[in-house]
Amino acid sequence: MNVEIKFTPISNLGEFGLINRIRNIAARVDNLHVVHSIGDDSAVLKTGEDKMEIVTTDLMLQGVHFDLSYTSMRHLGRKAAAVNLSDIAAMSGIPVAATVSLGLHSNLSVEMVDDFYEALVEEFGRYGCAVVGGDVSASVIGMVISITVIGEVEPKRYVLRRGAKPGDVVCVSGDLGRAQAGLKILNREKARYIQSGEPSDFSPNFEGYDDALEKHLLPEPRVDMSRKITEKINVHSMIDVSDGLASDMLHICKSSGVAAELDEELIPIDPLTRRVAREFGDDPLDYALYGGEDYELLFTISEEDFGSLYGLGGNIRVIGRILEGKPEVKVKRISGSSLAFADFPSYQHFSPRAGKG
Amino acid sequence: MNVEIKFTPISNLGEFGLINRIRNIAARVDNLHVVHSIGDDSAVLKTGEDKMEIVTTDLMLQGVHFDLSYTSMRHLGRKAAAVNLSDIAAMSGIPVAATVSLGLHSNLSVEMVDDFYEALVEEFGRYGCAVVGGDVSASVIGMVISITVIGEVEPKRYVLRRGAKPGDVVCVSGDLGRAQAGLKILNREKARYIQSGEPSDFSPNFEGYDDALEKHLLPEPRVDMSRKITEKINVHSMIDVSDGLASDMLHICKSSGVAAELDEELIPIDPLTRRVAREFGDDPLDYALYGGEDYELLFTISEEDFGSLYGLGGNIRVIGRILEGKPEVKVKRISGSSLAFADFPSYQHFSPRAGKG
Repeated sequence: MNVEIKFTPISNLGEFGLINRIRNIAARVDNLHVVHSIGDDSAVLKTGEDKMEIVTTDLMLQGVHFDLSYTSMRHLGRKAAAVNLSDIAAMSGIPVAATVSLGLHSNLSVEMVDDFYEALVEEFGRYGCAVVGGDVSASVIGMVISITVIGEVEPKRYVLRRGAKPGDVVCVSGDLGRAQAGLKILNREKARYIQSGEPSDFSPNFEGYDDALEKHLLPEPRVDMSRKITEKINVHSMIDVSDGLASDMLHICKSSGVAAELDEELIPIDPLTRRVAREFGDDPLDYALYGGEDYELLFTISEEDFGSLYGLGGNIRVIGRILEGKPEVKVKRISGSSLAFADFPSYQHFSPRAGKG
Repeated sequence: MNVEIKFTPISNLGEFGLINRIRNIAARVDNLHVVHSIGDDSAVLKTGEDKMEIVTTDLMLQGVHFDLSYTSMRHLGRKAAAVNLSDIAAMSGIPVAATVSLGLHSNLSVEMVDDFYEALVEEFGRYGCAVVGGDVSASVIGMVISITVIGEVEPKRYVLRRGAKPGDVVCVSGDLGRAQAGLKILNREKARYIQSGEPSDFSPNFEGYDDALEKHLLPEPRVDMSRKITEKINVHSMIDVSDGLASDMLHICKSSGVAAELDEELIPIDPLTRRVAREFGDDPLDYALYGGEDYELLFTISEEDFGSLYGLGGNIRVIGRILEGKPEVKVKRISGSSLAFADFPSYQHFSPRAGKG
């Protein structure tokens, strides 16, 4: 007797398809604490009469999320903390406690683990967040970092992806695409090093690229800015830019049932990012739309509230508008042409075209 | 110029040495929420006037913690939930919410992920715990499972490892060593399968071993029993038996600054466990002391409270006593000889003798 076993490759669904499927299974069990669950940057739990808690988790795997050939343990520890803090910022939360699990292979030393941990604890500490627990394990399969952060937030102040309204203006902090520019430089110098036959006197050419390398290696979570914004303004929807502007804007559109129209001219791209793109023969807009890992805040507010953003610092800019219509992101190009995405266009795990950088 | 870089292999410290070192770094940042941090089964946070929260996390790596050649996705999902629930039980908590991160390699199918997730959500659901978030990622390095569980507990009712007092009796639920017996059988049949040249008509010999296999593959977290015990009795210290009786008893002793004397005659070892040990020419006491993964409760209470344990079910037995003295676990053998451990004797990650089963 043969039993037929169905085998659907995960790449058929892609990362977000898989998350949707998992969400439906998870939804079978619910309890009074759960206010908002899978499908946002963090979950929201009700822990008391006037208390909300937010929980976020992130898995980082060697060879997928980081490359130890150009990432020091200090940088990695700080970034691992920062990307989780960024998810808390995206909900307007205050980080409180973190757990950190590490899978370590035998070519790491005690000193390297110290460096990683010191940088991580320091970065969490900048925002008052304590590392309260974790797990360590031998790994035969490369370094594994899994972090969960618990934050608190006032019931009226947490922000989801799903509140964008037609007429809202779309705002972004900082500039976009610079992390991708940094990654391009790092990968170029790594390739040069390998081509050189790895001589001990090889010196990478990083001159003038510092701001791009730093944006990739040491992103700044916008925890403080997020709190400042929601103190003054009723933010309708928010996300952090981790996958790229196109993908993260589409997350807001899909969750909110709206469309967004962005204007290339308004999207903040740093001169250094433009210079790097030119060197590689790339379109700098691509770095902003698909590069990801900028960890800036992308949010929507009523047009009349925009004036209140002045004086908050952080270079917040309007880059477009929310429209009625089915979920879609349109980008008006300076050239007069336009782009449109109704499906996630940028980096996705498990997609046949995955392979960032 | 040469810069000397210190490289101390992690195996020099071992798992618990590394955790101690990490704890010291993490202790640099603290906040008002943190009641108890790294070094117990879970962390304890104060979230309100009369509210405590416990947080536990566990990392499971393919090739280290589980073997997909004899573990089905349904079993793995259920066990992944159970081992985390067991940590909540060890503190006398009520599980509330879980986050689940998965690293998945491309030879897993969507159906396998469904099976894993369904079993996991069902197991958490048995205890009212909702899966509220997580992360999925492609993995080039085998399957990775990282789970964090948040529980709640009354401020007067959570139990740490560090409250054992001289004169306490040491109690354990269920029986010990049976998970190890199950693992021995699974590994034996796997070896026979490989030796057979992997023919499609190979059938493993599991007849009569069901209770041992089940103990290894599908452990039962003692969440309900833990709550029942602490409802009636002031439990001084508690831990779940995950590393083995010797190691977990020593955790209580080191945390509490006491010694423990256990009596082989009183340690509950099932007849099936004895039979399997005999087949392998092993001492069944070794399975109980060093096997681990039984996920039973090990706790200490005042002698006068022992009477109150009757009627709670769960086969709770006294196996020894807490003594004054420096941290050490002594085991009186039936033969008249005795064993003593002042250092962690059983499975430790990174130790040169690691390699369970």
